[in-house]
Amino acid sequence: MIAEILSVGTELLMGQIANTDAQYISRRLSELGVSLYRHTTVGDNPGRVKEALREALARADVVITTGGLGPTEDDLTKEMVAEVFGLEMALDEVSLHAIEAFMERVGHPMAENNRKQAWFPAGATVMPNACGTAPGCIVERGDKAVAVLPGPPHEMKDMFERRLAPWLARRGGAHIESRFLRIFGIGESAVENRLRDLFHADNPTLALYCGPGEVQARVTARAADAESARAMIAPVAEEIRRRLGNHVYGEGMDNSIERAVFERLRDRGETVSFAESCTGGLVAARLVSVPGASAVLGEAHVTYCDAAKARVLGVREETLRRFTAVSAPCAREMAEGARRVSGADWAAATTGYAGPDGGADGTPAGTVFIAVAGPDGATVEQCRFNGSREFVRAVAASWALNALRLRMEALS
Amino acid sequence: MIAEILSVGTELLMGQIANTDAQYISRRLSELGVSLYRHTTVGDNPGRVKEALREALARADVVITTGGLGPTEDDLTKEMVAEVFGLEMALDEVSLHAIEAFMERVGHPMAENNRKQAWFPAGATVMPNACGTAPGCIVERGDKAVAVLPGPPHEMKDMFERRLAPWLARRGGAHIESRFLRIFGIGESAVENRLRDLFHADNPTLALYCGPGEVQARVTARAADAESARAMIAPVAEEIRRRLGNHVYGEGMDNSIERAVFERLRDRGETVSFAESCTGGLVAARLVSVPGASAVLGEAHVTYCDAAKARVLGVREETLRRFTAVSAPCAREMAEGARRVSGADWAAATTGYAGPDGGADGTPAGTVFIAVAGPDGATVEQCRFNGSREFVRAVAASWALNALRLRMEALS
Repeated sequence: MIAEILSVGTELLMGQIANTDAQYISRRLSELGVSLYRHTTVGDNPGRVKEALREALARADVVITTGGLGPTEDDLTKEMVAEVFGLEMALDEVSLHAIEAFMERVGHPMAENNRKQAWFPAGATVMPNACGTAPGCIVERGDKAVAVLPGPPHEMKDMFERRLAPWLARRGGAHIESRFLRIFGIGESAVENRLRDLFHADNPTLALYCGPGEVQARVTARAADAESARAMIAPVAEEIRRRLGNHVYGEGMDNSIERAVFERLRDRGETVSFAESCTGGLVAARLVSVPGASAVLGEAHVTYCDAAKARVLGVREETLRRFTAVSAPCAREMAEGARRVSGADWAAATTGYAGPDGGADGTPAGTVFIAVAGPDGATVEQCRFNGSREFVRAVAASWALNALRLRMEALS
Repeated sequence: MIAEILSVGTELLMGQIANTDAQYISRRLSELGVSLYRHTTVGDNPGRVKEALREALARADVVITTGGLGPTEDDLTKEMVAEVFGLEMALDEVSLHAIEAFMERVGHPMAENNRKQAWFPAGATVMPNACGTAPGCIVERGDKAVAVLPGPPHEMKDMFERRLAPWLARRGGAHIESRFLRIFGIGESAVENRLRDLFHADNPTLALYCGPGEVQARVTARAADAESARAMIAPVAEEIRRRLGNHVYGEGMDNSIERAVFERLRDRGETVSFAESCTGGLVAARLVSVPGASAVLGEAHVTYCDAAKARVLGVREETLRRFTAVSAPCAREMAEGARRVSGADWAAATTGYAGPDGGADGTPAGTVFIAVAGPDGATVEQCRFNGSREFVRAVAASWALNALRLRMEALS
């Protein structure tokens, strides 16, 4: 089954609101196994609504509209559906009574233009509105159908879940499942190269999404039921894990590298501290963003100047003099110092040039040393990130968290 | 001039993200006086991108696309624009050198799929990308044009403002100037109430944008030349400043409360330190995001557990026992301690319940105490923020920076 979404509302074309209705319906259609190839948005204009409806019906089996169901003159979605299908408008007595009851409940007099909301294309299946006055409807004509939903998101969602989703599932008879693999420490192009042949499959499909320093792989299968879809995904997900090794740090749309670190620390019953220079508190802030972080983090230190590195963390004056603060020895002493002063099991440290300037000695901006100190000693990596100051700091913070994860995994 | 927006991206049809790009562009087109009658979204599918492009070009003078400019095989917006216009793809040497330089800087071999980002429809005007690797372009053919923008919102906005908005204004035969006033510590509806009558003007127009805890007022004028436009804006901007007083902390699209704090500290030749509990490093990270931050920040401390508050900052055991760590006395001692141990002129401290849980004593989540210690003593505010853990922490960090700004301004 192929669907399209047609959003009606001048407020969308004015940019007054984002089209979150389209996002919600899209996500639910994908979960329901309904193919969706296009969204269209038009204003409250009869000619353009009709034109967009005709075009969408030429391509899709089901057109889902949102908006244009209000009591005012420029709300005309149902009327345009009737015109396109060559149907008269008919009064639905049940809806009229429901609207009267609703207005009485909220203590407003029933206005004449509210009666308009009880009229539908003849033969339509009315979808009552549990959260407002505008009922929706499903209008079928041959093998095509238009489902008309209200625009306000809470009314739309309620009607979608109670009325339209069951109707779509009955009509469709397929099920969609997806798995999201979270990948760190390898670029999007490199991931694509390693997985190239897997992109050619039709079902399950593989897609990559790119965040700062991080890649997500989505594997989606369509089958008669959820269990079969999951069984189709499993070998593809396993193959991705095999090819990418420990670059895959977890699964799930809402996962993150800080959550992965938090869970590993919590499961091990261990704690961590941070010593941050160029990231300036970002690593700690990322871990603290996970609810319950106090179980694994007691303290962290931003030591931005040399004096603070020496006084707070015990970095030796000689190290700073001989190698400068942006050096592997300094990063190592920062991590060791943070672990010592906090008494934590682990500590990670960052020191580098976030930019726009590099070091006076010619070290380029984007150079960051990342150290991890743990029960089995300390390690340091020299990284080179390219991008804005903001990007370098964000990726350096993620990289420090990932380095910590890899050290914990290596030890277990 | 009539425009249409064509958004390209399977992630939009999967409902993984809302189409905020379309909202932003819609709003800006309306401000620029460009008519917009339709948004269309299609996936990363060559046939459907081409079909949607042809249809949009039949209706509109300018089609603005977003997305599909990445390095991977399914990024194909530019290629489809070339096909629709009957143009070859041509290599842009300047863009290629920029990408090559980038790859060399990060020490990766030049991959074939990265070269792809330097190819454009022949004759296109390239729009460099200041925030990412994918340049955009404007392709003109007869009286029709397609403007190709990247999908990531920050890259899209930057390119729209720097490149496309001026091009659209020139094409529309007018000059557009805008001023952005940055407002903190007063809600959007309160700002709206104070400025209500100013919204009725046609030219200059006034619009509000809302960020976490912060409001931006944009005043935009259209005139024959830049100087006239600026002269039209000036009295409106002055009136806004008069009505909002010290809630206006600065001007400029790229301004921020951390930049305002940095500039005031730098101009005074003073330094600051932070003691953070619930914000977990976010306040320091925000200040460090400003290039040159080392001139005003030497160190900061994340003291998440009580023991660290006592040991690192010298918060008295009695204070913690009697008032708990989420209290005005604790916040004050944290700020005073951070100022003392760092030797900085100023220090700000945060302690609170970011959520999802509040205090065991019934203190609700979102309660945050914010203290500022300076040459003239210490002050504490009790705040109550409503929202997710992420929102509470972000707004608390901004609030701490703003409290510091107000204290500095009061002293001068």
